[in-house]
This record gives sequence, structure tokens and C-alpha cells, in this order.
Amino acid sequence: MNVVSYHPGPDELSYTFGGRAPVGRVRPGTILELFTEDCFGGRVTSVSDLPSQVCEFPYLNPVTGPFHVEGAEPGDTLALHFVSIAPARDHAWSSTFPLFGALTGTHTTATLQPPLEERVWRYDLDLSRRTALFQARNSDYTVELPLDPMHGTVGVAPAANEARMTITPDAHGGNMDTTELRAGVTVYLGVNVEGGLFAIGDGHARQGEGEVCGTALECAMNTVVAVELIKGVATPWPRMEDDTHLMSTGSARPLEDAYRISQHDLVTWTASLTGLDLLDAYQLVSQAGRAPVGNVCDTNYTMVAKIPKACLDGPEVYESAHARLRELADAYRA
Amino acid sequence: MNVVSYHPGPDELSYTFGGRAPVGRVRPGTILELFTEDCFGGRVTSVSDLPSQVCEFPYLNPVTGPFHVEGAEPGDTLALHFVSIAPARDHAWSSTFPLFGALTGTHTTATLQPPLEERVWRYDLDLSRRTALFQARNSDYTVELPLDPMHGTVGVAPAANEARMTITPDAHGGNMDTTELRAGVTVYLGVNVEGGLFAIGDGHARQGEGEVCGTALECAMNTVVAVELIKGVATPWPRMEDDTHLMSTGSARPLEDAYRISQHDLVTWTASLTGLDLLDAYQLVSQAGRAPVGNVCDTNYTMVAKIPKACLDGPEVYESAHARLRELADAYRA
Amino acid sequence: MNVVSYHPGPDELSYTFGGRAPVGRVRPGTILELFTEDCFGGRVTSVSDLPSQVCEFPYLNPVTGPFHVEGAEPGDTLALHFVSIAPARDHAWSSTFPLFGALTGTHTTATLQPPLEERVWRYDLDLSRRTALFQARNSDYTVELPLDPMHGTVGVAPAANEARMTITPDAHGGNMDTTELRAGVTVYLGVNVEGGLFAIGDGHARQGEGEVCGTALECAMNTVVAVELIKGVATPWPRMEDDTHLMSTGSARPLEDAYRISQHDLVTWTASLTGLDLLDAYQLVSQAGRAPVGNVCDTNYTMVAKIPKACLDGPEVYESAHARLRELADAYRA
Amino acid sequence: MNVVSYHPGPDELSYTFGGRAPVGRVRPGTILELFTEDCFGGRVTSVSDLPSQVCEFPYLNPVTGPFHVEGAEPGDTLALHFVSIAPARDHAWSSTFPLFGALTGTHTTATLQPPLEERVWRYDLDLSRRTALFQARNSDYTVELPLDPMHGTVGVAPAANEARMTITPDAHGGNMDTTELRAGVTVYLGVNVEGGLFAIGDGHARQGEGEVCGTALECAMNTVVAVELIKGVATPWPRMEDDTHLMSTGSARPLEDAYRISQHDLVTWTASLTGLDLLDAYQLVSQAGRAPVGNVCDTNYTMVAKIPKACLDGPEVYESAHARLRELADAYRA
Repeated sequence: MNVVSYHPGPDELSYTFGGRAPVGRVRPGTILELFTEDCFGGRVTSVSDLPSQVCEFPYLNPVTGPFHVEGAEPGDTLALHFVSIAPARDHAWSSTFPLFGALTGTHTTATLQPPLEERVWRYDLDLSRRTALFQARNSDYTVELPLDPMHGTVGVAPAANEARMTITPDAHGGNMDTTELRAGVTVYLGVNVEGGLFAIGDGHARQGEGEVCGTALECAMNTVVAVELIKGVATPWPRMEDDTHLMSTGSARPLEDAYRISQHDLVTWTASLTGLDLLDAYQLVSQAGRAPVGNVCDTNYTMVAKIPKACLDGPEVYESAHARLRELADAYRA
Repeated sequence: MNVVSYHPGPDELSYTFGGRAPVGRVRPGTILELFTEDCFGGRVTSVSDLPSQVCEFPYLNPVTGPFHVEGAEPGDTLALHFVSIAPARDHAWSSTFPLFGALTGTHTTATLQPPLEERVWRYDLDLSRRTALFQARNSDYTVELPLDPMHGTVGVAPAANEARMTITPDAHGGNMDTTELRAGVTVYLGVNVEGGLFAIGDGHARQGEGEVCGTALECAMNTVVAVELIKGVATPWPRMEDDTHLMSTGSARPLEDAYRISQHDLVTWTASLTGLDLLDAYQLVSQAGRAPVGNVCDTNYTMVAKIPKACLDGPEVYESAHARLRELADAYRA
Repeated sequence: MNVVSYHPGPDELSYTFGGRAPVGRVRPGTILELFTEDCFGGRVTSVSDLPSQVCEFPYLNPVTGPFHVEGAEPGDTLALHFVSIAPARDHAWSSTFPLFGALTGTHTTATLQPPLEERVWRYDLDLSRRTALFQARNSDYTVELPLDPMHGTVGVAPAANEARMTITPDAHGGNMDTTELRAGVTVYLGVNVEGGLFAIGDGHARQGEGEVCGTALECAMNTVVAVELIKGVATPWPRMEDDTHLMSTGSARPLEDAYRISQHDLVTWTASLTGLDLLDAYQLVSQAGRAPVGNVCDTNYTMVAKIPKACLDGPEVYESAHARLRELADAYRA
Repeated sequence: MNVVSYHPGPDELSYTFGGRAPVGRVRPGTILELFTEDCFGGRVTSVSDLPSQVCEFPYLNPVTGPFHVEGAEPGDTLALHFVSIAPARDHAWSSTFPLFGALTGTHTTATLQPPLEERVWRYDLDLSRRTALFQARNSDYTVELPLDPMHGTVGVAPAANEARMTITPDAHGGNMDTTELRAGVTVYLGVNVEGGLFAIGDGHARQGEGEVCGTALECAMNTVVAVELIKGVATPWPRMEDDTHLMSTGSARPLEDAYRISQHDLVTWTASLTGLDLLDAYQLVSQAGRAPVGNVCDTNYTMVAKIPKACLDGPEVYESAHARLRELADAYRA
């Protein structure tokens, strides 16, 4: 088994997808043990560290990578199986941020009202009990929430020679901020440039759907990823697979377009897997599908479209990459 | 116990919220046994009955009601507890409809492309096994889906002397098409006119999130509703409560505004229930909340914002109407 | 010549399209001399009269009417030619309004920020010099702006037994707030109910495009309208015609859908007038058309699509209603 | 006078803003004589050359540049005065393009309908009479339209180390496709990287507002630009100035956000130029402003906000760069 560990120093972090040389090369079949810094670059260390003061634009939402996957060429698909996602610290941070979030005017939904107060919350994480403690800032209210670690950001170098801030989700992946991206999930990303150049970041100890205030329980992570390459199979938008479901994603504005992209991809994917014609597949997804909200706060919004594999008669997708990566993960853990 | 049964004839159905005299008067505390017709008015009886031919605009999406609740005045809230929602037939119908649905140009998202094919699907329902059978029209593909009966449409007469087609969801309720509106749920609706004038319709044997093709498993229903009135408590947008969660809704376009309305209402409601200040409540909802998509096909889109009551320290809401209605429902079933 | 004058008392004003008995009946060919109150119902009489205090929801944006046009039936079109629009007072009022306007959070674009300050501006009108004087509230800055009187609101009773607040523009017309609706323009409105039931209000001494703060130079008006009826010709969305241009409108959210509706209508109208096929008409409108913004602040946004008649080879539209109404207006003025 | 001419070869064209080395360096005060290729890269040479066949993604919408302006640093502003924009050929091309345009489903407004027909139109240009001839493809309908040459695309390297396809308008400029960008206009662009790295392309012999079908009268251009640099003055979004008006732009989705950005910028700019407080400036722009639509077809939509300088009491902006560049242009022409 080929296991590679990588813990980037502060200067090795990336802030764009595209436009950056790889930090390493991996062969398909590799297990990667990665450290990812939190979205604040680790600079928020107390509730008085306001992100707008301790962080410096555009050095936000760092990702670990990019990694060049040997043999990956445009038209292929990378499969990244998340073996485990473990908080690297015993606490996480969340905050409001001026003119960012769903319930505030922003730089694009521009209003003349003053920004909301910038405020930071500390969450103590109990990794054995799998809980995070919400502590109000202006009262003594506390409540325990279940841990549900995930990565907000995963992606590859975009097409068309673009370089995009890691904060932006689009067809190349990026900051989708979907709670579906948990351990046990395989993410499929279409390759746009030689080597694919994937990177991962923005760990969340947990997140509500939509990430309404703009941040989650932001946390550095120790994450293990198993890497595969499916040659000659293209993927138009990021997809996901777990043991029970297939998922498509879409990232756009307005939010209904994110919904449309994800549902359209799931309908056409369903048709190709089942032999249903387009309208029959549309009907099946309409009745059997779910639509978990990713983010409604980033520069593009993200929706997921999700269908039980049981509805598709046990489809084989991506040359059974998910099953093979599950086995590899089991072997790694053993 | 005051139990009232009502099975409307075809001429007694309503097609608007507002602008219509009540079909009956009920006292708070009443159990209502209702029959609701399907969204096609029962006119689709085979897969060759195309809705655009057998139905006549605007006689679509009929509702049963409106009912005048004695004592209800503007500024009060109606609580409608859905005791049971049972398919009234052994089959349901679904269809595409020209220029309606999320993955087609529509009358507002106007395009020059010809409409998608109009096609009807029949679902056989197995009420004992709680399944519905999807049967493709252009192949022999079939798959069983779980029943999950719900009502797409519930609402009251709107404010400001408006009358709105039942197809439109807004602050008065209407065609929200959320899968969360199941048996066991209490819906709270702000009263805008004397008597409130609530009505219910658009039963679905099941529905995917977003109702992407524009229709669900459309089915007449035998539905039992327990009615309560909370005096002097206003409700800005429809809310829901079940045994474990509180829910706010928002209906608007674009979809992010439906999300904003629902999350805004849940944040301010959370603040009022917990004593948290607005930003602390924003933070808590951001991390603990969910955002189930209602519809992304109707004239307004609908989102639900949802938080576990456990996160709110067992709040008392609406004078414990849900608990009381649960008891009433239990007594009724006994 | 049949000339009818109507000056409604405060109790005769209407606040919805639909759901209201007519205030009068007119025959096609009638000249109507109308008084319309301003959007504040005349209650703002000094800069210290804050609209949210002196006005009472839903008694905002009153219209004069509705008028029953004899012989009008569903499927016909009303033609309303605006002969003249004259400010009825020597001053106009404008204001911000809490949670209303394009550069503020609103009830639907819900944010947690406090509303903007509510502030009232008085404009002195010089009717001989055709100017209005902007006077800043917090400095001594003044500037003269040209008068350009228009009506924000014109419409008929909606289809489908709906009644809509006058503030909302939709397929029936309503509060479109387009600066194109000046004297010299003929407005075409599709008839949905017997008599059509048109009404007019919301005079503006002038308005910027989009009405960004939510109000214009709000002013009572003495307005003269010439009324015609085109039998058997339907109109899907309000259209306008002046001596040089044809115009279509669309009202929806998001704003691109208002654009799509208006452009789609102008393309299909162009095709029907010129014999161009749909794509050739699409191309011609794409290059020759303009798209004046109506409002970006109301419950639906409005866009206008506009093409020179010269590009359409002198089309005859609506049985030359505009030319005939121009002649009638000339005769009236003579 | 420093005059530089540059006619790029096919291999020297650029397809992104950012991520590309400069093709030349210019000093402030330079007059640049540029050739720009059309958006099809000159590959459409007959109506049977379908763009989707003769062009190759992502080699669409080429720009001439980027140019490094000596001394330009982040926080400065480039002023580009368009001295003249002259069609370089005696004809222009327009077309539909599969899944592109406002009245069709697209890759983001994803629908299941087949794309519209791809069709090409040739326009003969009469440069002396200043007309372009529309010729229908499916009939013998023709009409002359006035020439109104403009550039759809102008911009600088984006902030945050991004590289963006030239087709996308955003805060760095790009494919705004506004008819306001004519000869006689000065464009102000905030500098994000050393040298600014501006580029220009996508000439249109004329364009309708919104560019509804997705393309205009696409034409290679001989364009003369006068370049200035304003040190230490930042510009958040592209602005424009002509002899009579100041203009702000915004590019985003949905279209109302493009409107909000542009109006917000114009309001705050107005406040800074006049000393009006924010609400007084909001009021003045609301009544005196116009909002010409840029594009409603690109990956972001664009709106312009525009106010007469006369309303602002003859403001001095950008150190009178426009007046100085006008003089330079006059000297060049002399």
C-alpha cells in the first residue's frame, strides 16, 4: 500500500484552484494523510481575534495541495475517497464576517445598511463523546451539538486556464460547503488539466445546511484520502457516492440554478445508468430524489441532488471506484 | 369530542385562498375529517389523459375549504395538526406539464425552445406495504418507492384583501409543497381575516425534494386535521412543529430569498424562545439548523428552516398547542 | 365626443386589482378625466410625516377605478391612451420606507441588519419651467431635475379570480413603475374578466430607472385617458406603443425573468408582425432592441423591451388603435 | 505624443484576464492604436460556419493585450479613454450558440429541452452611411440599423491571483457588453496587480440592450485608446465617464444584484463627490439616475448606473482624467 503523509507549512498553503504548481505528485491507488488548516488560516485563537483584523484578504480559506495525479488528463475523472476526517484540535471557531453570510447585505447583494457586528464563537470539541459545545457570547446559554466532520472545500484546477479563489465553488469543485462531504464518501471530479491538481481544505466539525451565517465550526483536520483515477470518463460537475446514494452537485447563482444544474446532472446520469429515457428519468428523480442544500453564502451557492442507489437497480458507476476505494480504506485501517 | 366530516362535491372545491365564502364553520378543538381531491381535480384517469387537455385553467390544484374558525381574528394564529393523511385511492398520478417544472423554460423563465413532452405516469399504491410503484413509460423499468403522504397545499385567506391562486405559496401558506408536511405535524398559520378561512389540498403519496418535474404522486386524500386557535399571537410566515423539531418556512423567488425568509424567521423565533440575542441565535441556527427544500417549480419557491427542539432547551411554543393537539389526536384515534 | 370626469373621494379609492366592484362604466371611445391620489394617499404633508406612521397597511398606493368597459370580455384587449398626465399639486414627496427599496434588506431579501433611516423629501414643482427641485435634507445641496410625469400603476382585474395588491406588478399590469408610461403612450392590457376593470394610480412627477429607493416624486395627478377596446385580440402581458416604438413588459423575480418575459413577448410579437421566423425575430430584437428597467424594488420587478417601429416596416398593431386614439386625443384637446 | 500601434497575430491573443504575461508595456499618456479580433476569433466567414463547429472552447472572445502600464500598482486606477472604435471589416457576424443567450436554457439555467437551432447572420456594414443591414435568414426581410460601435470586453487582471475567462464580467471588468462603452468614453478600472494588465476585445458594430441572443454584430475593430494612470485612487468596480454622465457598473447574478452593485457604487460615489450624506445621495440617484442594461446572457450579468454630471454640480473626478484624455485625443486626431 502506498501511503503518503503531507503536513503543509503556512507558506505551502494554496488560495486558488489553478494557477499554482503542485506541492506533490501521487499515483492512483495512493492513500494520502493530510493536514488541512482552518478557513482562518489558524489565526483566530480567541473570541477577540476578529477575522477581518487577523486575516488578510485574499489569504482566506487555505487548501492543502494541489496534488498532481500521475496519468490524469483532461477528460478523465479523479475519485477521492474520504477515509477519515478528524478534527486536529480540541476546539473550533465560528464567526460572522462583515458583508458575508445569507442574512446580511454583501458585496453583491449590496445594501446601504451598516454590516452586522463581527463576532467570534469558540466551540469546545469532545472527540470521544463526538460533541461540540455551543456557548452563547451574550448569555450563559450552552447546548451540545453532535460532531459531523466534513470538508467544505475540495476541487481541481478549473478548465479554460482559469484560476479561482478557493472560496468560490463551480464546475471544478471548490468551496461547495455541503454537509454530504463526510468520511465514507467518494468525490468524483472531472480533470481539466494534466495531473488534475486537486486540493482539499475548509474542515468543519459540523455545519448547518446553507451555512447561513457564512462560517461553520471551522477546524483544522487530519484527513485521509484514497485517490483513484478513472481514465476516459468525463464528469461535468462534482459528484459524490456513498454506500447508499449517488449525488450530483451544482454551484451557481441564483440558488435555483444550483438546484437546476444538480438535478439536471442527476437526471441525465440516472438515464445513462438505467436506460430510462430522459423523461422517465426526470420522473423518477422527481419522486425519489432529495436536494440537500450546500451553501447559500458563498460567491456561488451549492445544491446537491441525491438518489438512493436502490432506485437505480444497483448501478455500476465509475468502474466501481467507490467499492474499490472502500476496500483500500479498510485495508489501510487494518 | 367534536368531530366533523366533510367531503366536498366537485362544485364545492376552491381554487383561491381568499375571495371565497367559507364552506363551513368549526370551533377550536374540532377534529375535521376531510376528503381532498388531487391536483388534477380527479380528471386524469389514464396515462393518455394529458392534464393540459383534461384540466381547464384556472381549475387546477383544488382545495377543500375554506373553513371559518370561530373566534379567529387578525393577529391570531391557527394551529392545524395533521392527525392522519391517507391516500383515498389505490393509485396516484404524476405528469410533466407544458412550461411547468424546474428543468424547463416556463412562462416566467421564458425561453424560445418548444416545451418538453407532456407525459403521465400511473403509480400503483400498496397501502399495506406502504409502497408506490414507479413504472417507466418507455421501458419496462419499475421500482418501488416508500409511501410518505403529505399535503402540498395548506393556507388561509391572505392579508390586504388579496385572493391568490392555490398554486402560489406565500406568507399565507398555499402550495408550499414541502415533504415536511406529514401526519404528526402541526402547522401554524397567521390569521389575516375574520375566521382565518383555512383550506387544504394537493395530497401527495410521496414527493422528491423540490418537486423538480412540477408534480408529485398526486393523490386524493382522506385527511384528519385537529384545529386549534391561539389568540393574540401573530405568525408572520407558516411554521410547523413536530415532536422533535420547530420549522419556519419562506416562499419567494429567487430561491435564496425563500431560504432567507425561512432562516430569518427561525433565527428571530429562536432568539425569542431562548433569550439569545440576535447574533447568538444566528450562530446557533447556522450550526444546528437544516434547510429542507420545499418546491422549486411553483410560482414562488419554498424553503423550510428546521431546528431540533433539543437545541432550544425544550421551548414552549404557541401555548403548547402541538402537545395538546397530539393528545386530542390520540383521543380521536382511541 | 364622450368625456367623463371622475374625482374619487378618499373612500372610493381602491387598493387591489380584482375583488372590487367598478366605480363606473365607460363605453369604448370615451375620454376619461381622472384624479389620482399619490402613493401615500395624500397623507404625507411635511417631511416629518413618516409614511410608516401616517399611512396604514394595506392602504398604500391607491388607484382610481376600477372602470368597467362596456363590451369587454376575456380574450379582448383594452387600449388606454394617456392623453395627458399633469401634477395636481405644486409639490411632490419622496421617501425611504423601512425594508423597502433596492439597496436595503426587505421582507423577502431578509437580513438581520436594522432598517435604513426613514426619511421624507419634498420636491417643489415648477410646472411652467417643467422642473422639480431636489433639496437635500442634511445639507443645503439643491438641484433642479426635469419633470417627466408618468403613472407607476395601471392594470386590470387579474385572471383566475385573483385579487392583488396594487403594489404588485404581474401579467395584469399593476405597479410596473416604468418611466416609459408617459403622456402620448397607449397601454394595451389583456382582459381577464367581464368589463376589464381597469384602474390607474401612483403618479410620479419623475422617476429614476429602477426606482432604487422605492419611491419616486410621488404626486397626485390630473390625468386624461382615452379608452378603446379591441375585440377578440388577446394580450399576454401589458404592452405599450408610442409614435415611434412598440414595447412589451415583464414583471417577475429574479430580474432576469422580467427581462426574459418582456424580450420573449417582443420576439414573438415581432415575428407575428413581420412574418420573420422565431430565430430571425430573436436576432432582430437582439440587435435593435432596448430594455429600459422599470422597477427593481417592488414585490415583482419590471422590465420593458422596446423596438423602433421603423425596424418592423411600419406594422399595424391592434387595429391601429394608437393612431385612432391619438386622433381622439387631438380632437379632445382642440 | 507617444503613439504605439499593435496588431496581434492569432497566437498573441489572450483568452483570460490574469494568468498571462503582458504583450507590451506602455507609459501613462500613451495613445494605443489596437486591432481587436471578433469574438469568434475571425473564424466565422460565412453563414454556414457554425461557431460551435469552427471555434474551439475555450478559445472564444479573444482580447488584445494584456498591457503593462508603467507605475501601476494595486490601489491605483487605470483610465482608458476610447478615442475611436472603427469596424475593421465591411461586415459583421452574429449567431445563436447552443445553450447560450437569455431566451434559452443554458449550462446553469439547465433544462431538459433541446438547444435552439444554431444560426449565423451576416451584416453588411456601410461605414460612410453608418448603417448595418439586417438580413433575415428564412425570408427576404431586411432592415437597416444604425452603427453604434462599442467594445463588449475591457478589463484588467483580477485580484486574489485569479485568472478569469474573458467571457465573464466581474469587478475587474471583462465581458460587460454594455452599449455605453463607445468612443468618447473613459473607462476607469481599479488596479489589482503590478502594471494593471489591461486588455480589450469583443467589438460590436452595434448591440441591443442585454444582448439577448448572446451575440451582437461581432466585428474586428481598429480602436484607439488613450491611457492614463491615477495614482493612489482605488476603484471598486469599473466606472465610466463621458462628457455628460458618470457611470458605475455591476456584474453578478441574479440581475438585481448587478443592479444593486452599480447603484450602490453610484450612490456612494455621488455622496463622496457632493458631500451629500448617504440617504440624500440615495434619494438623488433614485430620481435622477438611469440604469442601462449591459448583458443578460453572460456568466455574470451587467448593469450600468448613470447620472448626469449636471446633477452633481460639475464634479471633479479622477483628477480630471477624462478632460485631459479628451484633450490628448483631440491632439492625436489633429
